[in-house]
Amino acid sequence: MATKYVYTFGEGDLSMRNLLGGKAVNLCDMIKIGVPVPPGFVVSTEACGVYNSQGKKLPDDIKKQIDWAMGEVEKQIGKKFGDEANPLLVSVRSGARVSMPGMMDTVLNLGLNDVSVEALAKNTGNPRFAYDSYRRFIMMFSDVVIGVDKHAFERKLDKYKEDKGYTNDLDLTADDWKAVSELFKGIFREDQGKDFPQDAKDQLYEAVGAVFRSWDNERAFIYRRMNDIPYEWGTAVVVQSMVFGNMDDDSGSGVVFSRNAATGENKIYGEFLMNAQGEDVVAGVRTPEPFEALKGKKPAIYEEFVKINNMLEKHYKDMQDMEITIEQDKLWFLQTRGGKRTAHAAIQIAIDMVNEGLLTPEEALMKVDPKALDQLLHPMFDQNALKAAAPIGGALPASPGAACGKVYFTSEDAKAAHLKGEKVILVRLETSPEDIEGMHVSQGILTVKGGMTSHAAVVARGMGTCCVSGCEAIRINMEDKYFELGGKRYNEGDVISLDGSTGKIYGHEIPTVEPKISDNFAVFMAWADKARTLKVRTNADSPGDAKQAIAFGAEGIGLTRTEHMFFEGDRVHKVRRMILADNEAERRAALDELLPYQKGDFTGIFEAMQERPVTIRLLDPPLHEFMPSSDSDFETLAGMTGKSVAEVKAKARALHELNPMMGHRGCRLAVSYPEIAEMQTRAIIEAAIEVKKNKGYNIVPEIMIPLVVEIKELRFVKDIIDRTAKEVIGKSGIALDYMVGTMIEIPRACLTADEIAKDAEFFSFGTNDLTQMTYGLSRDDAGRILEDYQARGIFDADPFARLDRIGVGSLMRVTVEKGRQTRPSIKLGICGEHGGDPSSIEFCHMIGLDYVSCSPFRVPIARLAAAQAAIKGK
Amino acid sequence: MATKYVYTFGEGDLSMRNLLGGKAVNLCDMIKIGVPVPPGFVVSTEACGVYNSQGKKLPDDIKKQIDWAMGEVEKQIGKKFGDEANPLLVSVRSGARVSMPGMMDTVLNLGLNDVSVEALAKNTGNPRFAYDSYRRFIMMFSDVVIGVDKHAFERKLDKYKEDKGYTNDLDLTADDWKAVSELFKGIFREDQGKDFPQDAKDQLYEAVGAVFRSWDNERAFIYRRMNDIPYEWGTAVVVQSMVFGNMDDDSGSGVVFSRNAATGENKIYGEFLMNAQGEDVVAGVRTPEPFEALKGKKPAIYEEFVKINNMLEKHYKDMQDMEITIEQDKLWFLQTRGGKRTAHAAIQIAIDMVNEGLLTPEEALMKVDPKALDQLLHPMFDQNALKAAAPIGGALPASPGAACGKVYFTSEDAKAAHLKGEKVILVRLETSPEDIEGMHVSQGILTVKGGMTSHAAVVARGMGTCCVSGCEAIRINMEDKYFELGGKRYNEGDVISLDGSTGKIYGHEIPTVEPKISDNFAVFMAWADKARTLKVRTNADSPGDAKQAIAFGAEGIGLTRTEHMFFEGDRVHKVRRMILADNEAERRAALDELLPYQKGDFTGIFEAMQERPVTIRLLDPPLHEFMPSSDSDFETLAGMTGKSVAEVKAKARALHELNPMMGHRGCRLAVSYPEIAEMQTRAIIEAAIEVKKNKGYNIVPEIMIPLVVEIKELRFVKDIIDRTAKEVIGKSGIALDYMVGTMIEIPRACLTADEIAKDAEFFSFGTNDLTQMTYGLSRDDAGRILEDYQARGIFDADPFARLDRIGVGSLMRVTVEKGRQTRPSIKLGICGEHGGDPSSIEFCHMIGLDYVSCSPFRVPIARLAAAQAAIKGK
Repeated sequence: MATKYVYTFGEGDLSMRNLLGGKAVNLCDMIKIGVPVPPGFVVSTEACGVYNSQGKKLPDDIKKQIDWAMGEVEKQIGKKFGDEANPLLVSVRSGARVSMPGMMDTVLNLGLNDVSVEALAKNTGNPRFAYDSYRRFIMMFSDVVIGVDKHAFERKLDKYKEDKGYTNDLDLTADDWKAVSELFKGIFREDQGKDFPQDAKDQLYEAVGAVFRSWDNERAFIYRRMNDIPYEWGTAVVVQSMVFGNMDDDSGSGVVFSRNAATGENKIYGEFLMNAQGEDVVAGVRTPEPFEALKGKKPAIYEEFVKINNMLEKHYKDMQDMEITIEQDKLWFLQTRGGKRTAHAAIQIAIDMVNEGLLTPEEALMKVDPKALDQLLHPMFDQNALKAAAPIGGALPASPGAACGKVYFTSEDAKAAHLKGEKVILVRLETSPEDIEGMHVSQGILTVKGGMTSHAAVVARGMGTCCVSGCEAIRINMEDKYFELGGKRYNEGDVISLDGSTGKIYGHEIPTVEPKISDNFAVFMAWADKARTLKVRTNADSPGDAKQAIAFGAEGIGLTRTEHMFFEGDRVHKVRRMILADNEAERRAALDELLPYQKGDFTGIFEAMQERPVTIRLLDPPLHEFMPSSDSDFETLAGMTGKSVAEVKAKARALHELNPMMGHRGCRLAVSYPEIAEMQTRAIIEAAIEVKKNKGYNIVPEIMIPLVVEIKELRFVKDIIDRTAKEVIGKSGIALDYMVGTMIEIPRACLTADEIAKDAEFFSFGTNDLTQMTYGLSRDDAGRILEDYQARGIFDADPFARLDRIGVGSLMRVTVEKGRQTRPSIKLGICGEHGGDPSSIEFCHMIGLDYVSCSPFRVPIARLAAAQAAIKGK
Repeated sequence: MATKYVYTFGEGDLSMRNLLGGKAVNLCDMIKIGVPVPPGFVVSTEACGVYNSQGKKLPDDIKKQIDWAMGEVEKQIGKKFGDEANPLLVSVRSGARVSMPGMMDTVLNLGLNDVSVEALAKNTGNPRFAYDSYRRFIMMFSDVVIGVDKHAFERKLDKYKEDKGYTNDLDLTADDWKAVSELFKGIFREDQGKDFPQDAKDQLYEAVGAVFRSWDNERAFIYRRMNDIPYEWGTAVVVQSMVFGNMDDDSGSGVVFSRNAATGENKIYGEFLMNAQGEDVVAGVRTPEPFEALKGKKPAIYEEFVKINNMLEKHYKDMQDMEITIEQDKLWFLQTRGGKRTAHAAIQIAIDMVNEGLLTPEEALMKVDPKALDQLLHPMFDQNALKAAAPIGGALPASPGAACGKVYFTSEDAKAAHLKGEKVILVRLETSPEDIEGMHVSQGILTVKGGMTSHAAVVARGMGTCCVSGCEAIRINMEDKYFELGGKRYNEGDVISLDGSTGKIYGHEIPTVEPKISDNFAVFMAWADKARTLKVRTNADSPGDAKQAIAFGAEGIGLTRTEHMFFEGDRVHKVRRMILADNEAERRAALDELLPYQKGDFTGIFEAMQERPVTIRLLDPPLHEFMPSSDSDFETLAGMTGKSVAEVKAKARALHELNPMMGHRGCRLAVSYPEIAEMQTRAIIEAAIEVKKNKGYNIVPEIMIPLVVEIKELRFVKDIIDRTAKEVIGKSGIALDYMVGTMIEIPRACLTADEIAKDAEFFSFGTNDLTQMTYGLSRDDAGRILEDYQARGIFDADPFARLDRIGVGSLMRVTVEKGRQTRPSIKLGICGEHGGDPSSIEFCHMIGLDYVSCSPFRVPIARLAAAQAAIKGK
């Protein structure tokens, strides 16, 4: 039996994606469940292989199968392809297994010729439409299928309009379009040395061949090469009958949602226009009517629509966004898909559908995009005001939310303005720990440098403050306090607005709307908590952060960065004295002064977290980060330490590193200065004992050693911790358990995880650093590089925002395997920024981590993402 | 049957290392082949476990076995342990499976007491020696075995000398020492509340127990923890009879080499002293006689020595360094080991031993330390002059050889001085590509910052120029042109000397000796070439380097760094113009000007290498490295480009990166600026075609893409190369094959090597960067960190000098496996600095690389190391 190459829509189903392509099988599925879809057929991907391997010719048996399938379509539609009285017109499109740019565009109205165009004019009573369609078809076919230069047609049309004194396409009459059609056919003839094909079948065979050839063109080749799509897959060709909403007054088009996309209300919501095509509804030239109005005008069709609408919701178990056309009182569905909705609506719909018995709670959880929850937790711009606003620039959406305020360029100026009651947007080249207070009083933060895991981004997300980072187009003038963007100048005190969810920057005030958390949210999140197996912790450096995170559902702290505490108030002076110490004794004296502060910090955190687990990381950043930058600060420091300014500056210079991210930081500091780790351990253990004694909480602090690459290094620092803890516990007379573990953030730690697990009781993946090292890519410098790489299709995503499962992920898998092999009970978590990213959380679930930890405002996102991962994994 | 815990030396052999420890089995082996070794016995490591697990008590059965073994020793030596007339004295030492600091020191002369000391005095005729030995034994036993504070003894002795008016130990007579012995016993009594043990057996049991306890002490514990030595191993105790070279005039001691360690001449060479102990020969208080003189004095003993000497050389197949003692006309060997020798001697001895039939060529190859070959290729200090010289400081031995010259602080000053005929030492904070010419004219280079793979180190090794790097103790004053080190000031023009092989710095002139390459060297290296399977290539950036490397035996170029060419002469101006270009057209115009230079460079290299393979790497460093640093250079640049100084500086600032090592460099440049890769490809292919046409060489250039992390990135750049190469080849009408491959220097490339191998025809491991990323450790900033880590025993070696087999190595193994899995024919090499390090080369051999590539002066080292790896692998 001959191979079957052509399938009518009725013959296909969702299981045949590889053979028929994605576009076709979706249409087949709609038909299968009884939705009126304009009939059509599909020439299979196998036929593509045959065509391209056999000299780019369409074999006769494929042509025969196409003719047969067209016959089937004609029967269903009651029109005839190529007919002179009642012609069937079709669209021809490419459709591979996966959607693929670079392949052939759609050709509409195929089947038109000098005779059938007249029939179309007669049947629609709209000769202008018919000839406009014809001239469009000639141009589209010539360009897309044959490869005639499109510009020749455009130039010809311009010339025609000039000669006639027309300024606008709307000025052309039916006769004009007819004349233009003739001119266009002339261009074709001149270019190809033959007449424009009048035989509908020839047109179709040509178009099918052109789709197959487009699989072979350079753009498609490059795309496949970049995306590892095998050449063998091939593309299918979708041939579908045309329907016209603009045929007469019994025709029309509409765009309809099965529920309200803004509020989630269970009520059909949409717009329609009679005697119009779909584009007209969207374009806004005529004002569409609310869809409800169809009920009065065409009650039977409205009735039919509602029935199908309900069926589609049941079938796809989701709110639907549908495109429909009515052609002479006959309803057609051109497309249906899951409808976009606000976060508020998404939760409302999910809850309603469970109550309606349409979804189980687990299915409902899968319908809400975790990232959308941001909308519920942060201020957002008023949507109507936003629609009218044109951004002046854009960069990375580093921390979600919307903000509006006056521009200031230093933390000091921001604080001063804040004290005066102003709303502030802090604009900086990049932020450093010295800016913390300024960031704290700001509505939003805008930086010129730095990516999604830059200091500004990480700290802003922690605070829940809106941040747009890495806007390299900005030129800041610090002396005269202004910045330039898009050729305009913004002075200190000018009002701008930032959208941290989209990365857009606006040069004026846009009103914001405060977030409201509904009761639905609590119900929904409770389902998520029931479904998930991953625990969700938070990254928190203060009791305030900790309380905020608990309110959002955090079950512990996965990362407390002790260095952030070093910047508060005048502590940094003591820290600097410690760094400048000439010997251990001086250093110990300075550390002794820091001890009470650190102990106080930890006491506050332990009290806030009660018996929830708390992981505290020992000092991590290179010491030069604590050194001052301004001359006056250097003078203060010199005065305080009894050294000369020159000496102090020399010491700061000596701390400078060429690549500080790979320098003297993390546990390397503890190896060089064991007394720092000793002080921090003392502070942690003393605080835990105190809270245990005073509040009765059973506290088991988890002390985390950063940047470990080697078991001996871990042992060296663990010995310091154990020795100190033993002494403090012994002195207190109160029993206390504690754990010692390590960050896993350097490839070598992953590769030797079996060794490291001998002494580490827990691992916490620091995927920010691990991504940096695995890619050899500095997150502070990645902006320009990521831009080029994403533009060229080399990276699908920013690996600092979405965990790279292939490279970084394979190191994580190895670590989990080796770690558990040595210590089956080892506790495994992640505290990098990926801990708040849904795709990354799914991966963490897949490789069997115990918990993820993220900034407080991302905790709900993580809870939902963890639930989705667990449900998908079933 | 009871467990055997005690073995006489006659019962042990080399296979019993785990049971008896390393020290004991070496002594057993010497006895086994008939060498007269003072008899003794060993208490096994198993006994250690018994002792420590059973309440730190020596069980009776072990005591009995000790007594039995002592009886065997008494029989052999003809003395009796604890005897009053002819006492047998013994030494007691610890001896684990591996040598381990932190365990018990040696106790000598055990068995002495108030009675036997008299016998020793009588038998030696030297009462002063006897009582001196006794008081030493009392102190040593009390300190090492019992734990009495040593300082109490020292203070007592000082007091005694003060009272007597003595200034020197030599002033004390036999009676004085006798009196001191009494005082020392008094200290013991006071501290321990009992008399110093007089029973020899009690002394011995105590000492054995003390050795076992020392396995349990904190220092040993820490050492084991850091070195992963299991507690279960335990230590053995070696008990050996004492012999005395200072007993009378028929006694003596000597240190003897079986061949000349300086020249390699096959002639016994050494020194001896009659009536003296081994220490005396070494200490130089009395002038020793040449060993030859023994022939006249004690012909029979000399004869016996020669016989044993020959036997030992045959047994160990190596030149021996022996310690002997003659006690009353009886010859004893206390130790023998492979003798240290100069590189010159090592080769002479290897060749001789093959000619003598003692060694096969392959065995001979194993006797020479590859690193020692440096001595043969570089100038070295005159050894006698060096002995008298005291270094003023030291740092990393970054590039071997010795140099002496006047200090200059800038490349310009160095060049000017060189033109005046001066010998120059260039002293810099750190070097950058701008310093190349200054480095070229210098005898030696000294830097304050940077490790073994810093710019200075890598470039100096490439040039074969002596370099000491990372001397952080130096303070440079650039304004007044001087540096301070060790509290002294060295002005511009002052003469200093550098030893690049040891890292030492001298504040004055030391004469150097030029290297001589002997005929033996060629013979020896030919054996190496025959034995090895790894190919050896060189890293060379110029025809001169290439020729030098061929002379040293290089078989190809594994790495040409094209950026080094960008700094020569005034090319850097053109490079800067290219970088400052505002758009692609400007950039292309600047690149067009660079093309002829690059082409010329490659033509020269292809001509020098003839048909040997040449791998050329596309531009790698971040562009800011090419930007000027001085204001005057910025002005020049502004003038040249028609931009303002401010604009030019702003652009330079924009290129600045926080972590440039992980920034916009490598193939990331080619992705952002494809036209750079295009120009370089054009230059390579045009040069190859030209040389092929003019010289008839069949040239197959290997184009290498740096810093790849992802197959799509490689594809993007490879497409540029292929497109350009196709065009150039097509235009020339001359057929040319070329290969495209990639550096493997980022962990993600290793982890996705199977993917990358789809498009890469070769891999070259860039282990400098790979080590940086795998450790998260910047090689430019590693100095201080590595110092601390090696001092604390966390790192055994500098991972930038010796490849880390565990972490970096496991990534390399994965890469080799995955690469070959996709492309079995893939060519695999290494071009990082490890390519010239013997241990790293061995690893490269083990994992099956095809070649190593190193700087020209390391090529002979690599050839020998590769041969040794192949022989060991058999």
